[in-house]
Amino acid sequence: MPNPTAAMLVIGDEILSGRTHDANTYHLAGALSAAGIDLREARVVSDDSDAIIAAVQALSSAYDHVFTSGGIGPTHDDITADAVARAMGRSIDVREDARAILAAHYDKSGTELNEARLRMARIPEGATLIDNPVSAAPGFVIGNVHVMAGVPAIFRAMVASALPSLTGGAPLMSRGLDVYRGEGDVAAPLAELAARYPQLTFGSYPFQRDGVHGTNVLARGQDSAALDAALAEMSELFG
Amino acid sequence: MPNPTAAMLVIGDEILSGRTHDANTYHLAGALSAAGIDLREARVVSDDSDAIIAAVQALSSAYDHVFTSGGIGPTHDDITADAVARAMGRSIDVREDARAILAAHYDKSGTELNEARLRMARIPEGATLIDNPVSAAPGFVIGNVHVMAGVPAIFRAMVASALPSLTGGAPLMSRGLDVYRGEGDVAAPLAELAARYPQLTFGSYPFQRDGVHGTNVLARGQDSAALDAALAEMSELFG
Repeated sequence: MPNPTAAMLVIGDEILSGRTHDANTYHLAGALSAAGIDLREARVVSDDSDAIIAAVQALSSAYDHVFTSGGIGPTHDDITADAVARAMGRSIDVREDARAILAAHYDKSGTELNEARLRMARIPEGATLIDNPVSAAPGFVIGNVHVMAGVPAIFRAMVASALPSLTGGAPLMSRGLDVYRGEGDVAAPLAELAARYPQLTFGSYPFQRDGVHGTNVLARGQDSAALDAALAEMSELFG
Repeated sequence: MPNPTAAMLVIGDEILSGRTHDANTYHLAGALSAAGIDLREARVVSDDSDAIIAAVQALSSAYDHVFTSGGIGPTHDDITADAVARAMGRSIDVREDARAILAAHYDKSGTELNEARLRMARIPEGATLIDNPVSAAPGFVIGNVHVMAGVPAIFRAMVASALPSLTGGAPLMSRGLDVYRGEGDVAAPLAELAARYPQLTFGSYPFQRDGVHGTNVLARGQDSAALDAALAEMSELFG
């Protein structure tokens, strides 16, 4: 059975303006590979309701799971929860269970649960909350869309909260080696090898290290016996 | 006049599998902000012809410029040039000007211009070459699609080659400050400020530094007088 498929949707002007380097896609890609879920696409859109709605609808209908990052904080530009609710045809309002989580958290530190912070309890009708062990304000799952925070430490904690509930397939594994030849010399034997292992995918990635050029050749797939055999052949060919 | 718009398309299994952290989107975002071109969207797709074609067609019709990264090397999984040609309805073959560039480059190092390396001279009919001062193999522009290499040093060199030929608008500038308050305390006054500067966009980004929580508040826009005035107000409000 093929693995379930997934897409990542990063939401935030700060990524597109060049202020912030998105670290969440890289983290999710590694976590999904290990969980046996195939990340097929990632998108970044701005803090714009129409752009978020269009992307959520396109990705949630094309893939088994969608993971979003960003735009669920307390400020005026945090519009992800409302946009996702609209994209999925659900109503949204402050929900009592989410409000209670925030109230308990801010009580402890003597911080006021003001109107801005209460925005973080806006949860679409029918959504399941995602635990946030870092700063309490929950993410949520509605349909096949997992809505998570953009702050990397919180995003990672939410991925750890959400992933165990998903059924993955075989983990995506890789075997590879560094070859001190140009990619153009590796290409023909690698293509021939790839043709004989249709269950694997092969990639080659040029590098430069201490002034020496080389190529990292890599096989990826779910069949560990085939990966071991391919690595042995790569070592023979290029070692 | 509004600034021209742009999208980034990153092509490569190595990003979606979690092997490689994409650095090119961040670089392009900063370069486009400085050039007065608004990066509106970024996507990552795998080394799959149908996925590349669909993304190129969607982005090239929605935005003024598209920049792609990855998949133009010598190996069997480098299919970007052919996929972009199909997406744009052009034929593609080894082109003499590109072949001559490669031949001159490999002659110097005594490296064979073999069949694999010759793949890098496949250029769609009617495309303009983009100079690659790092490793010779050119990128190209076809229609509004700029096709560039994935290796970060080469991508950056190609962006530097390609950007001066594009007409940008006013650069996107930002002014901001770090506030040692929670984002929930900053939210209401920041929203009030944002409402009075409709020509700017405002963002807030929580941080934790040496165990202290704070919020980076930021205004972005093309109007430097408005940005200066907004920064003065932010300093007054939060300083």
